[in-house]
Amino acid sequence: MSRPHPDKRLFTPGPLTTSRTVKEAMLHDASSRDEDFIELVRDIRRRLLALAGVGPDAGFEAILMQGSGTFAVEAVLSTALPRDGKLLVLVNGAYGERMVEMARRHQIGHHVLTWEEDTPVDPDQTRQALAENPSLTHVAVVQCETTSGILNPVDVVGRVVREAGRQYIIDAMSSFGVLPADLTQTDYLISSANKCIEGVPGFAFVLARRTSLEGTRGQARTLSLDLYDQWRGLESNGQFRFTPPTHAILAFAQALDELDAEGGPKARLARYRNNQQVLSEGMQNLGFTPYLAPAVQAPIITTFRQPGHPRFDFTRFHQELSRRGFVIYPGKLTREPCFRIGNIGRLDEGDMHALLAVIREVLDVLQIEAPIHSPSQSA
Amino acid sequence: MSRPHPDKRLFTPGPLTTSRTVKEAMLHDASSRDEDFIELVRDIRRRLLALAGVGPDAGFEAILMQGSGTFAVEAVLSTALPRDGKLLVLVNGAYGERMVEMARRHQIGHHVLTWEEDTPVDPDQTRQALAENPSLTHVAVVQCETTSGILNPVDVVGRVVREAGRQYIIDAMSSFGVLPADLTQTDYLISSANKCIEGVPGFAFVLARRTSLEGTRGQARTLSLDLYDQWRGLESNGQFRFTPPTHAILAFAQALDELDAEGGPKARLARYRNNQQVLSEGMQNLGFTPYLAPAVQAPIITTFRQPGHPRFDFTRFHQELSRRGFVIYPGKLTREPCFRIGNIGRLDEGDMHALLAVIREVLDVLQIEAPIHSPSQSA
Repeated sequence: MSRPHPDKRLFTPGPLTTSRTVKEAMLHDASSRDEDFIELVRDIRRRLLALAGVGPDAGFEAILMQGSGTFAVEAVLSTALPRDGKLLVLVNGAYGERMVEMARRHQIGHHVLTWEEDTPVDPDQTRQALAENPSLTHVAVVQCETTSGILNPVDVVGRVVREAGRQYIIDAMSSFGVLPADLTQTDYLISSANKCIEGVPGFAFVLARRTSLEGTRGQARTLSLDLYDQWRGLESNGQFRFTPPTHAILAFAQALDELDAEGGPKARLARYRNNQQVLSEGMQNLGFTPYLAPAVQAPIITTFRQPGHPRFDFTRFHQELSRRGFVIYPGKLTREPCFRIGNIGRLDEGDMHALLAVIREVLDVLQIEAPIHSPSQSA
Repeated sequence: MSRPHPDKRLFTPGPLTTSRTVKEAMLHDASSRDEDFIELVRDIRRRLLALAGVGPDAGFEAILMQGSGTFAVEAVLSTALPRDGKLLVLVNGAYGERMVEMARRHQIGHHVLTWEEDTPVDPDQTRQALAENPSLTHVAVVQCETTSGILNPVDVVGRVVREAGRQYIIDAMSSFGVLPADLTQTDYLISSANKCIEGVPGFAFVLARRTSLEGTRGQARTLSLDLYDQWRGLESNGQFRFTPPTHAILAFAQALDELDAEGGPKARLARYRNNQQVLSEGMQNLGFTPYLAPAVQAPIITTFRQPGHPRFDFTRFHQELSRRGFVIYPGKLTREPCFRIGNIGRLDEGDMHALLAVIREVLDVLQIEAPIHSPSQSA
């Protein structure tokens, strides 16, 4: 039977291309209730807080949650919000919208502020909304909205939220580990194993302010996604309440080692920034146009407008690239056709140049001359 | 930093000892939205139905769900039960109790029938409860209650439920793939990747009657655990709504190949039965007493009473075994001290004999003469 091609490079927001050694860490079966594994999980929880820049006594807790990143976001929203709570969601993309949908499903009162997908969320409008709506208890925002790749000013918003005395939730899924966020003014920060830490998918994690978390006992609307109970489980005996993805956790410990070996978040950020710059310049040289202004572009994933050229067919473009071992990502904007290219994971400048060369080759196959001309010129 | 010992053998209900080749299938990074991976997931879904003995046109669907088995059980209960639905839970252990807790959290009306942990659930009492409570719409039961290792008569109960015109939910977590259950009289059957299929943890799956599933649109209380939306996502474009554990899924495809290579469910059941028999006899020769009567013991995991010997300390017993590379499982009975030894996963008769030899060795270390005498004799 068919097996996925082993050597494709993934230019996506995750699952990512990971190192061989991260994957090799999964060649072991660990018992989730054995002391060695319990110690490994304790160590991972400590290291996640250190990565966020807080020590073990700073009053924060790291909680691992089975499932994808979305599961952990839902765990936070459906645990943190009391029955009489009300959530302000700052939305400029699909992941913000997803939090609104979660609030709807759990019948959590909510208010939504929306911006265009190319526009960062605005701290002043947030301040005004909080002033006008005293019933709002929590504010949620996405740091890097993968829909477009835009960077939201989470620390400026955080100050506004703290000043207004509300709790603050950051979806830092595709940014944690490289892009800084001030945890000390945050109540819940959420990320996933298979993003900038470069582990494999299977679980996500939440960094939570202990005093906020302590107030959520009995509030969760579900059993599996009860963040409080998950924390108490990990604290009481070091074990998960329900079977954790042991292999993905072994891989994550190795991925944390490799983040250290690379020089930590700053060094990794430098690599990602360089990847993104090489990509963006190279694509523009081929005639593609980035969707976002450089000032708001996060160094994670880049959205390009689909060229108006009559022979540019994205499905075929994607397939031809995939056949050559390069996987890019479809677009997710609501208003215009686009596609996305990620630059995180075990990828460096050489990979970005290799991708650009193959894109040029595929344009040839599609009989599109590079640089691509505008529709009026090429028609 | 410490890493779990690579060679421990896991005599637990999962995560299990898996084959080297199952783990090696994880040495690849797949893109969850790439055609190769989509085809692999389609194939896995087909093969799960075939394992359950139904063809592609029998009106059943296989739906994979991220997280542990508990996540999939909660997905079923919180999606299948309409607002005015009422669940009958048949309970003779912790996993039955867990379903009651889920119903409570989701404010799903429910009624509970409880038996002692050494007693199978009773079809006649089930029939009576359904007759007396016309508002009951669904019945849920655990096939192999891992709390004790007991086998519940799911097919007999299934006939009762079908005759009464209610929907039927089987938690077949630790039994699917070896112990038969008649899917044609079932609406939802739930199992997990890291049990008798011998994959690694990271996701679970639900086999659902299509007509029942179709009736659940918009009913789910959560986003992540919405079984209907998960199904529609997999059907519409073959993709998961949210990032799946790609590596665990690659391992699962390999595990399904290896189940076929072993000769399918019957051959694997024969291996497990033999493992359980060697274990049970050997343990009794050492003076340990199984908790369950042989007639109700499933060939998955065996509960042994803790000996009354004054020098038998389970924590130390467990640690000494673990140090020697053999991991057994603590007990979960509500009323008496016990421990459990699983016999599923990549384990054969030789592994069971090796475990028995090491248990004898550890008894020596604890200065307990084997066979263990009763408290009165040894005091």
